[in-house]
Formats: sequence, structure tokens, C-alpha cells
Amino acid sequence: MRNLNQDNITQAVIARLAATPDPRLKDIMTALVQHLHAFAREVKLTEAEWFKGIEFLTATGHMCTETRQEFILLSDVLGLSMLTVAMNNDKPAGCTEATVFGPFYVAGAPHYENGDDVANGASGKPCRVSGSVRGLNGEPVANATVEVWQADDEGHYDVQKPELGHAQARGVLHSRADGSFDFRTIVAEAYPIPTDGPVGALLTATKRHPWRPAHLHFMIQAEGYETLITHVFRDGDPYLDSDAVFGVRQSLIADWASQPDGGTQLNYDFVLNPVAA
Amino acid sequence: MRNLNQDNITQAVIARLAATPDPRLKDIMTALVQHLHAFAREVKLTEAEWFKGIEFLTATGHMCTETRQEFILLSDVLGLSMLTVAMNNDKPAGCTEATVFGPFYVAGAPHYENGDDVANGASGKPCRVSGSVRGLNGEPVANATVEVWQADDEGHYDVQKPELGHAQARGVLHSRADGSFDFRTIVAEAYPIPTDGPVGALLTATKRHPWRPAHLHFMIQAEGYETLITHVFRDGDPYLDSDAVFGVRQSLIADWASQPDGGTQLNYDFVLNPVAA
Repeated sequence: MRNLNQDNITQAVIARLAATPDPRLKDIMTALVQHLHAFAREVKLTEAEWFKGIEFLTATGHMCTETRQEFILLSDVLGLSMLTVAMNNDKPAGCTEATVFGPFYVAGAPHYENGDDVANGASGKPCRVSGSVRGLNGEPVANATVEVWQADDEGHYDVQKPELGHAQARGVLHSRADGSFDFRTIVAEAYPIPTDGPVGALLTATKRHPWRPAHLHFMIQAEGYETLITHVFRDGDPYLDSDAVFGVRQSLIADWASQPDGGTQLNYDFVLNPVAA
Repeated sequence: MRNLNQDNITQAVIARLAATPDPRLKDIMTALVQHLHAFAREVKLTEAEWFKGIEFLTATGHMCTETRQEFILLSDVLGLSMLTVAMNNDKPAGCTEATVFGPFYVAGAPHYENGDDVANGASGKPCRVSGSVRGLNGEPVANATVEVWQADDEGHYDVQKPELGHAQARGVLHSRADGSFDFRTIVAEAYPIPTDGPVGALLTATKRHPWRPAHLHFMIQAEGYETLITHVFRDGDPYLDSDAVFGVRQSLIADWASQPDGGTQLNYDFVLNPVAA
């Protein structure tokens, strides 16, 4: 295999994958090489542009820490995250739709009882959230793990504030026997995704705004049901039609309703998809 | 733009690039999104596989330092580097062919005079290297910058040994008035690319060997000519037909010739492509 040129190198690389023991890995790597090479050929990538790409990926990697995931952010703004979610969450009608996971989930959030305030000092207007977890046939799902996380009214998640040292506006609850849950938190507000890294530079260079419409993240897990990763979006937000990460679904938009007492109340009922028998 | 699905999300992401001021960046990003999405759709990437990919890229970024470039190594083993070189170095017949840059170049190598020993203590059998730099019409190229770098006989470049603290088997020379140059160094030997990072794990998972045939890197720069980045490969090496990074060109293979005095001598004449007027 010498003198490879732009016409025969792709097949040569693919041939080198022939002995891959895992057939799925072989398929994925084969397709990756084909599409990566097709991209480079289509734009006739120059050596300087190739090196810019190397530098961009390196900077993206260096921006990643325990609490910051710049590659997920990159995948999000390129629509790859939402494409992957869409391909893998083709649920029956009636189930709550999924959307992107985002880069700000962290495991090990504090546990709360129903009625507790998960804000834990995060800045923002107080808000009550209530809802239920049910299965596709309307059955209540008791003891579902309901994990929530959100940004404060300055647009920051707790993990973006290393000086904080504890969780804010992030917590784990469990649904009651009738599937219901409720907690206190702060009102979700629109915020820009972090623009101080390579992904921010990419948005600037392509004249894209970094804003996400106001939303509250949910991950709901219960035995016998598919895990649901989604957000609830706030009705009326100006960025619902131009979410920087392409995650909005009409069925996930809800009213953060003003109450007579001056407070705000969100109610949203979730429907989980049973695991196939 | 709500309720994007796997069929319409690609066009939605591309539409978001519409205001990109630099037309070349717009073309590159548009093609990147199309091919990236086409890859994900073709293999129907699962959410778990997507996350493996995020983890792989993150680990690759974390492996990159001032002296280690794991993303270049990844590009090399996927054939993207050689594809880019091939597309951008379609020189007239008679010019020396280019090959991959590799991850082990570092700027600021020490300067040497013709006849000097660039090994500077690197382990290996001594070797004399001589050659010339000419233009396409045979004209000698005087004062060309001839930068060379290579691994030692244990397969390591100096930059892979942080304890070293100085350059070994790496240096910058200049061609004489007649285009000639010569220097002493060590004999090039086959070596495995670094396998202690994510790229090594990828090679293992795809049952690929990590070996590169023995070679000596050259970067030759001279006013009025295109910069030449290439290697000279050692004839008879068992890995010439299975180079881990797909870089071998027949015209770049030369004899490391045993001499009557027990030494080794390599001679190679380079021909540069004039810059278009």
C-alpha cells in the first residue's frame, strides 16, 4: 500500500479496519472514515485549514474539565446531539418527548423531599413546580427518580461557579405513590451558552447567537420504563424558535403561570415509555 | 424552528450558518454538518455511542500538550492527514513528493553547520546524510532551510522524553551555494507510534499495528519555492506496505547504504516546486 492518492486512500484506510473484532465498531469506523474523507474532498481542505481544525479540536479538549464539557457543547451547536436524540427516541404517541442532555448535568446531586426548595440559594424569582409521572396507559409511576437542574437568573449553572462548592438549583426527588411530585426552585430564564471557549468563537465566526430559551432539565428514571431525558421550556420565550442547540419541541413548552399571591407555578405531567418486554 | 426530527434537522442547522461572513468558513461548516449528520444517520448512532465519542474526543484533547499532538495522530491513523497532503501537493512530475507532517515536529530546533552531528547524543548507529536542493529546472537552490527530525533507535523522538531538556536528532541546516548539504545523525529505524493514549486504544480495538517504517523527516523552505514537507523512507523496511499513517511513496524510498568503513550513508536529492508567478 504505497503511493496512496486522494482517490484510493479511503479504501486503503477502510481495508485496514478489516480485522476489527467488534462488528459494530467496524461499521462505525468504516462509515466515519468514508464521511470524514468525503467532507475533506468536497471542500478540498487545505493544509492550513486542516491545521486550524487540529487546533480547534485541541482547544476544545483543553476546555473540558470535570464540570465543563465543551465537546458536548460543540455537538449541541452542530445539531448532532439533537439528531442523535431524535433517532433514538421514537416513542409511541402520548409519551413525553426527549431532548438534548446538555453539558451541565453532573452526577451526585443532593436528594430532596417533595416540597423542598432545590434552589438552595440560587438567585432568581421563586417558583413552585408540580407534576406527575405516569406510564403510557395512564398508570401512576411511584418512586420514580426525578432529577432536575437549571441555570440561575444570571444564566449560570452551579457547576459554572467553582467557588460555590455546593449544588444549587439541582436535585433528586422521588415521585409519590400516586406518581405526583412537587418542589420549589427559581423561575427558569433564557441564557447564553458559554461563549468563552472554542464553541463560542465558532458561534461568533458564524454570526450565530448563543441563547437558549428558558428551560428546566428533567431526567426521570423508573424500573420498567425507558429513561426520559428532557427539558420543559417556558412559553413566550423569545428564543423558542432559534434555540442555539436545536432542542425545542412544541409538546415540551409549558406555562410558568403567575399566581394571585405574586408567585409562579409550573405544572407538567410526564409520560414514560414502558421498556419492551 | 421547533420539533426538528432526523429528517429536517440538518437543513435547520445549515440555515443557521447563513449569515457567516467568511464564505469559505460557511462552505466548510455547511459541508461538515452535512457529512457529520450523514455519518450519524448511516450508522444510526445510539446515545451511548455518541457519549463514547464525546469521551474519546475529550481524552484525545487531554492527551495533547506542547510536545504531544494526539489529534494529529488521530488524523494520521484515519488517513485524513495523507488525504489532505495528497489533495494539496499535486506537483509537476520531477518534484519531490510530500508526505505527512506527523505529530513530532517542534519549532525552534537548534541550527547546525553542514557536516555537524544533529544526533546530539541520541542513541543509534551513526549515519551520514548528504543531498541537494534543486528547483524543477535543475537549478541549485542556495541557502534553503533544511530542517530534519527523526526518532532514535528506541523509537522515540526527543520531545517524547521530557526529562531530556534539549533537542536530539533534530536540527536546522542550510544548503550551500551549489544546493548541497550534509550532516551526521543516526540510522532511522522503524518504530511504533505512541500507543499509550486514545489513538493507541483505537488501534488495539481495530487490531491495527502501530508501526511506521523507518524514515527521516525533512521540511525544506526556500524563497520562490513551495515549502516541501516530506520523509525519506528506508528501503527494505518490513512496514513500507503497512505504514500506520499511510504515508509511504515509492519515490521517497532510499538506500541507507552500508559503507566499507562500517558506517552508513544516505543520499537523497530534493526537487522543489517553484511558486507560481
